[in-house]
Amino acid sequence: MSAPERWSECMDHGVRVAADAGKMIREALEKDISIMQKSSPVDLVTETDQRVESFIISSIREKFPTHSFIGEESVAAGAPSVLTDNPTWIIDPIDGTTNFVHRFPFVSVSIGFTVNKEVEFGIVYSCVEEKMYTARRGKGAFCNGVPIKVSGQEDITKSLILTEMGFKKDPENFKTMMANMEALLAIPVHGIRAPGSAAVNMCLVACGAADAYYHMGIHCWDMAGGAAIVTEAGGVVVDVTGGSFDLMSRRLIAASSRTVAEHIAQKIRQFPCGRDDAEN
Amino acid sequence: MSAPERWSECMDHGVRVAADAGKMIREALEKDISIMQKSSPVDLVTETDQRVESFIISSIREKFPTHSFIGEESVAAGAPSVLTDNPTWIIDPIDGTTNFVHRFPFVSVSIGFTVNKEVEFGIVYSCVEEKMYTARRGKGAFCNGVPIKVSGQEDITKSLILTEMGFKKDPENFKTMMANMEALLAIPVHGIRAPGSAAVNMCLVACGAADAYYHMGIHCWDMAGGAAIVTEAGGVVVDVTGGSFDLMSRRLIAASSRTVAEHIAQKIRQFPCGRDDAEN
Repeated sequence: MSAPERWSECMDHGVRVAADAGKMIREALEKDISIMQKSSPVDLVTETDQRVESFIISSIREKFPTHSFIGEESVAAGAPSVLTDNPTWIIDPIDGTTNFVHRFPFVSVSIGFTVNKEVEFGIVYSCVEEKMYTARRGKGAFCNGVPIKVSGQEDITKSLILTEMGFKKDPENFKTMMANMEALLAIPVHGIRAPGSAAVNMCLVACGAADAYYHMGIHCWDMAGGAAIVTEAGGVVVDVTGGSFDLMSRRLIAASSRTVAEHIAQKIRQFPCGRDDAEN
Repeated sequence: MSAPERWSECMDHGVRVAADAGKMIREALEKDISIMQKSSPVDLVTETDQRVESFIISSIREKFPTHSFIGEESVAAGAPSVLTDNPTWIIDPIDGTTNFVHRFPFVSVSIGFTVNKEVEFGIVYSCVEEKMYTARRGKGAFCNGVPIKVSGQEDITKSLILTEMGFKKDPENFKTMMANMEALLAIPVHGIRAPGSAAVNMCLVACGAADAYYHMGIHCWDMAGGAAIVTEAGGVVVDVTGGSFDLMSRRLIAASSRTVAEHIAQKIRQFPCGRDDAEN
């Protein structure tokens, strides 16, 4: 079997596994809301997160035993987070865990697949909306099998921008995050939205429902699947400086056009957020 | 026919009209994306907004010719925005117009119905999600006919908060808006989300997907339908000071509990945003 055929087989399997994982998440969301919101929601998330990640990894490993994995929960449990040339599945079992706890409707399964450190395909399943986003390198991007493309917007003043805001322990970083939103709103842009799932944010850019998404402090498992989808939908993915995107850098701008991406890069200031492949 | 029976008849009619209006909006969203995003999206929005509002008002007036109306587009065209004791339909034909332009998936039709200046029922149709939220005073709140209730969360540190951020021409107001978000994030709360439709935000609080929503600069047609839905779902709707809610005041906090509403009221500063019933 040729390499392209082999990666197609991997992708088909990945889509099936993502659909099954999404079903597990929907079932967890149907549990009594009192269990979700009382006592220890954090424990429940961790339990579901770990269970879904184990399911995804074991389902893939069974079929492709020589492949490597970088998964959010595995890394949290001490597994290495270093990208090699080996075929590697980069997995976020529940992207948007805070949304998950609150049943806020943007929750997704994110899978990126790299070979020689390049993303070969991406899969994001927004499992409450039941939207399966997929993209294979050079083959375009799709939502539930229908081709999608970015808005193509070039004018920042007509752009709807996505980002996320959370408390940062470092007061300087927190100030920078707020100042960045302020700088963009003051251009002004059409608006800023914060839906709460990095992977879904990238898919919203990919299908033209938003014109850009920027984030610092994100992880490779939040970005790998969505980055492929944005790129294949005709968008651009760059570093927050406007330079080349680095999957392990914990930061990105995904945009409908290079012009919009560069305008955002000019307006926002960076703060240090480490690397996913840093030695601990 | 007794008054309660009569208002039931009004509500049933309102739900049918909202469903038809939502269908009109979905059809407008299916138009070629290039029409939406190039040349004059603002004109297209205005055209659809006016067309949907005319449809809603004429459909209701035909059946209830003595009733009053306050509609976003009618007020923009010079109609008075003063609440009287007469049965009054308060209408936002497209709540989330920026979302509409970008096809960001939170767009709704909002209808509130007041008698003697009290909201008798509320209808919010989130027309991309196809979720029809309804609430009649004293009769509970529903989504597609299924009862909904707020999360009941009392702890601000476990809360997911909704708001909206837009550019404010007055630099002081803009600073206050950003400082308010910063103050809440620093408590810290679980997170802040900005979905872009006031009416949908209130429904997300009503069904427990978020714990509170606050906003200054909103209009009565953004609030009337949703306020009834939050209240009937067991939540509270108050002024941003924590005092009594005033439909014409252009500001509110809608929350899952009085404790969370009061905590937000203590943390945020107000800025002047006028009244809907002010003399022009």
